[in-house]
Amino acid sequence: MKHIKKILFFWKWLYVHIFAWIFYDPKYLKGRWFADGISSPGWLWAARDIHHRLHTLQNMHIKWPVSPDIKVGENIIFDPDDLNNMNSFGNYYQAMDGTITIGKGTYIAPNVGIITSNHDLYNLDAHLPGKDVVLGKSCWVGMNSVILPGVVLGDHTIVGAGSVVTKSFPEGHCVIAGSPARKLKDL
Amino acid sequence: MKHIKKILFFWKWLYVHIFAWIFYDPKYLKGRWFADGISSPGWLWAARDIHHRLHTLQNMHIKWPVSPDIKVGENIIFDPDDLNNMNSFGNYYQAMDGTITIGKGTYIAPNVGIITSNHDLYNLDAHLPGKDVVLGKSCWVGMNSVILPGVVLGDHTIVGAGSVVTKSFPEGHCVIAGSPARKLKDL
Amino acid sequence: MKHIKKILFFWKWLYVHIFAWIFYDPKYLKGRWFADGISSPGWLWAARDIHHRLHTLQNMHIKWPVSPDIKVGENIIFDPDDLNNMNSFGNYYQAMDGTITIGKGTYIAPNVGIITSNHDLYNLDAHLPGKDVVLGKSCWVGMNSVILPGVVLGDHTIVGAGSVVTKSFPEGHCVIAGSPARKLKDL
Repeated sequence: MKHIKKILFFWKWLYVHIFAWIFYDPKYLKGRWFADGISSPGWLWAARDIHHRLHTLQNMHIKWPVSPDIKVGENIIFDPDDLNNMNSFGNYYQAMDGTITIGKGTYIAPNVGIITSNHDLYNLDAHLPGKDVVLGKSCWVGMNSVILPGVVLGDHTIVGAGSVVTKSFPEGHCVIAGSPARKLKDL
Repeated sequence: MKHIKKILFFWKWLYVHIFAWIFYDPKYLKGRWFADGISSPGWLWAARDIHHRLHTLQNMHIKWPVSPDIKVGENIIFDPDDLNNMNSFGNYYQAMDGTITIGKGTYIAPNVGIITSNHDLYNLDAHLPGKDVVLGKSCWVGMNSVILPGVVLGDHTIVGAGSVVTKSFPEGHCVIAGSPARKLKDL
Repeated sequence: MKHIKKILFFWKWLYVHIFAWIFYDPKYLKGRWFADGISSPGWLWAARDIHHRLHTLQNMHIKWPVSPDIKVGENIIFDPDDLNNMNSFGNYYQAMDGTITIGKGTYIAPNVGIITSNHDLYNLDAHLPGKDVVLGKSCWVGMNSVILPGVVLGDHTIVGAGSVVTKSFPEGHCVIAGSPARKLKDL
């Protein structure tokens, strides 16, 4: 079993390196998720992603390893140390006509949506002009939450599971929750 | 890169056409998602779906291209132009012992559930008799929402993210949200 | 079509048996999900899972067939007859530094999270000490719900869709819903 794993890890690592130069910006291929050599989570994420891209032709334009189980736009600013947020499941980082900024050390749970552009309520085939979303440093967004266009969360904002964040909390250092999300306490 | 993509797109298109006649009803293989020739999203969805069916033997009885990341019943009425709703992720269109009707031009976000038959509260291994769910034309159901059995939403109903829709709003032309969903405003 | 399916089912069944002895504890490979011979859902789940493990090297340490579309920890106690809960999608059964117990006959819908250890609010890179989560027998957890660390739900607790369960209802035999979940009625 141990030997099988070793061979598989090496094969994955080799496979990634054949394709990584086509798909990825090398700045995303370093940091804490690549610190353990060929058995690093980062290389496994990359192998899974490359396999998915070659089979489905999806996410071809995304410059970092991304899970097949999330949907992601290009205009996302994040630190390579937070590549975990891009390799989760059920997430939708829309970044349409707007940028999503994710501060360093921020954790985003599964099934979380971050939306920058809503459908036009009076013509659903069109989208409203996008509004950037900014999450500060060391935030934590709980599972099954949705963050709507234009929201700014300051450093160290905690979003409870199942929340819908409709307005900004730029001061940060607080716990918010609910639908619409309200401040529960300051930290 | 451009040439690689072209070759891959052609390969996918060919691959789809070998199997499409087995799995699909041709009425679903036209409309706006197939308007761009071999690089149309529709053919990519079909290629991904066929690959998934052959590997997992799931969804074999569904007559249209469907994402491997959603669960879907057979009794769903929708327009081929809205095939996007079937190729999202995290969705559960149950359609058990009841029909789900999705009006033309309706958008359903990721992780949305539409349920027609609940478990029997007093015997969970059994299901209650199903009740049809009807979404009118040009509705929009926000991410992470759930729509329960028997719900009828009139044309142009907007369901806010994270809502649980327990009763009908047959008049449509309104925004509803919350758990349970209540009307926020008329449009 | 029928013959193709038969051949594919047999191939899957064979494929599973080559690898099952490496990955699985045989106690999970029996019960109602394996009652229909080679076309049993259980073997298809196993085939999908093994394919996923060999391609992504994920879930290698999990001793039962598990969906590629959920994330799951090792410390989960459940009955083999409830293997369906492990082969859904969008679920996150964390079981980090704590055990999740799922009573026999309990149904867990898609996109449900069961969390045993939260991030430390004052140092997100660390986790708080875990607290076990216990679901009694014949519970039903609705879609898109999240259950937080330490929660105990008694036998026959029904959790409405989209709920966030923050405290225990050890008495069971009730319907709870909302965020935070409150009791709606006794059964």
